[in-house]
Amino acid sequence: MRECEHGVCAPKGYKAAGIHCGIRRSQTKKDLALIVSETRAAAAAVYTCNLVKSAPIKVTKANLADGYAQAVICNSGIANTCRAEGVEMAERMCALVESAAGIPAGDVIVGSTGVIGAPLPIDCIEAGMAGLVAALGDHSADAEAAIMTTDTVPKEYAVEFEVDGTVCRMGGIAKGSGMIHPNMATMLVFLTTDCAISPAMLQKALSVNVKTTFNMVSVDGDTSTNDMVSVMANGMAGNSPIEAEGPAYNAFDAALNTVMTALCKMIAADGEGASKFLECTVSGADTYEAAALGAKSVICSSLFKAAMFGADANWGRALCAIGYSGADVDVEQVKLSFKSHAGEILVCEHGAGVAFSEEKAKEILTEKDIQILISVGTGPYSATAWGCDLTYDYVKINGDYRS
Amino acid sequence: MRECEHGVCAPKGYKAAGIHCGIRRSQTKKDLALIVSETRAAAAAVYTCNLVKSAPIKVTKANLADGYAQAVICNSGIANTCRAEGVEMAERMCALVESAAGIPAGDVIVGSTGVIGAPLPIDCIEAGMAGLVAALGDHSADAEAAIMTTDTVPKEYAVEFEVDGTVCRMGGIAKGSGMIHPNMATMLVFLTTDCAISPAMLQKALSVNVKTTFNMVSVDGDTSTNDMVSVMANGMAGNSPIEAEGPAYNAFDAALNTVMTALCKMIAADGEGASKFLECTVSGADTYEAAALGAKSVICSSLFKAAMFGADANWGRALCAIGYSGADVDVEQVKLSFKSHAGEILVCEHGAGVAFSEEKAKEILTEKDIQILISVGTGPYSATAWGCDLTYDYVKINGDYRS
Repeated sequence: MRECEHGVCAPKGYKAAGIHCGIRRSQTKKDLALIVSETRAAAAAVYTCNLVKSAPIKVTKANLADGYAQAVICNSGIANTCRAEGVEMAERMCALVESAAGIPAGDVIVGSTGVIGAPLPIDCIEAGMAGLVAALGDHSADAEAAIMTTDTVPKEYAVEFEVDGTVCRMGGIAKGSGMIHPNMATMLVFLTTDCAISPAMLQKALSVNVKTTFNMVSVDGDTSTNDMVSVMANGMAGNSPIEAEGPAYNAFDAALNTVMTALCKMIAADGEGASKFLECTVSGADTYEAAALGAKSVICSSLFKAAMFGADANWGRALCAIGYSGADVDVEQVKLSFKSHAGEILVCEHGAGVAFSEEKAKEILTEKDIQILISVGTGPYSATAWGCDLTYDYVKINGDYRS
Repeated sequence: MRECEHGVCAPKGYKAAGIHCGIRRSQTKKDLALIVSETRAAAAAVYTCNLVKSAPIKVTKANLADGYAQAVICNSGIANTCRAEGVEMAERMCALVESAAGIPAGDVIVGSTGVIGAPLPIDCIEAGMAGLVAALGDHSADAEAAIMTTDTVPKEYAVEFEVDGTVCRMGGIAKGSGMIHPNMATMLVFLTTDCAISPAMLQKALSVNVKTTFNMVSVDGDTSTNDMVSVMANGMAGNSPIEAEGPAYNAFDAALNTVMTALCKMIAADGEGASKFLECTVSGADTYEAAALGAKSVICSSLFKAAMFGADANWGRALCAIGYSGADVDVEQVKLSFKSHAGEILVCEHGAGVAFSEEKAKEILTEKDIQILISVGTGPYSATAWGCDLTYDYVKINGDYRS
């Protein structure tokens, strides 16, 4: 497997576009994205588990019930959530793809992200459709730009991999910076592949990988109403379709995991206001669940996140977070180190502090990429969670998001 | 029932003191508190459910196994948590009370609060004991000052109430500003009463009331390792002892609820960095649990808390928090208003936004005390949770707490 370029346009048969249609005030901010496949593609998605679900999620669920799709349309600026007319508006977005691009409305994945509760200006979208379709091409970056909200950097990734000797590609774009605490799914992530795979196996691979990737990211503990990860597989690579487990499925699974993990890390590193990327690995657990609960709890702790912002080796807050995580661990066995490009330092062993150089710890924690390595025993399971520090800018961004 | 003064010294037979013994660097910051009852008192406590428990909690649990206590000793500055010698140090604190004040070590409630993982300077405490005992008197405020850490205001409350025609009093002191997200218990709260009540009924009343009071407060979602609420009842009011449910128990229960609720609100209002006090009530739920999960989820949402800091009527974030709370509610029925001294404004009905004056909303949310009133249906249950906004100062305080 090797990394490649062109995001969602890396696999054969996909085009993308992103334009400014007028939902966002700034003329220079793209706000409407389209991704289309030349042919109808197997498709799968996972969605937020928030009981308050965006209208586009309801419509996408219905459209993917048959396991196929051919296009993604997504706007930023307005979430199309908590509005009486929301489902009608999301359905109209799909209908606009049908009339402008000739793809059946029932084969469209639709997404929205932005302010909850405000009305979607569907006429802006309608007016922009012809230009959007005309702009379709090798423009994954434009589509990415159009789905970003408070994101500060674009999030694209693609890989090339082999299935039964056939070269396949898979690419993805993602947005997500605040209200990031996915559960079952996350933010908006659109993946494409030219690998041939059945809808059932595609859904399986997506659902399995979302647990160890997007569900292990947290920026602020808030599970969004609009979270969605979707994948389209159009089969144009020409491999014989994957319809069961085996080496071909494993190759596909590994590629999917690589792309999803890469996008996860990009989302965590670009968390709202973040100045540092945090990666917490809990190892030595008796179950995966215990390791995952512990790692995610550390990544979610406001106190720990604020300490990382201050480059303060306040490991007690990480232990505290393990303790209330719900993970069944023997706290007397916990061992904790901080690691970065500047080195590694052990600060706690057998659940108690050890003498360490505060100076060295400060040096390690002043770096941008911090690893928190926690061992909780001698069990075989480990899990990694990703997040960011809690900064003044998080408060600033969210103290007045709507204006 | 009426409010009265003197905190933990309001009931008959209690003396308190607080001194600076040298654990904290600042000479003017008291760091060691003592509360004693003239006679042995029925006693009860609830503790943190964090698996990482402070050494003083382990020792207090053992000492209260027989249902009686006569003194509280508590230091601030060092949490005495995650240290191999922690239990020995906590036991030595109790032994020091025995040698200096003549109260058996096994009748002492011991508490610590401050930095996790650092060693407790027991010699400072030992050197300070004689002065601490000599200072005992009507000094609830000194004891309160000695247990405060990042608290900015003291938290004392007392009431007078009648049990079977006998006047009783109950008082309490509390500390807690960060790492506040109690579960089973909270922060450090020491309550005293002269009401005569059996240890079993005292524990029952405490356990029941902690669920609707301290367990409904959150400052930052972090459940401390040192949380504890204890109560001593020395019976010196002279009522006939409460040993079963009935009117006398109900009067006691109401007084306990009043004192605990008052202290809760003080803790929430003094949350680390807080500029606003938030009270969220969820009503119309089919179960108390649903109402409580919903209310606490709103109070815990970083995004919602940041919006309140910015006086931004971003109600979608509250709905989002209800949606991921785990509460079984019909989101299509949710109704939400903001209320303060400046008025009340309806912003959402039937799970969707309604037109409202942004200007009026801003005026309401610019006040210091904000109520978030949420109705989720026509059920008979409601619950209230208390918290505060998320501000730059929270990040500042926690970015470098140890220095």
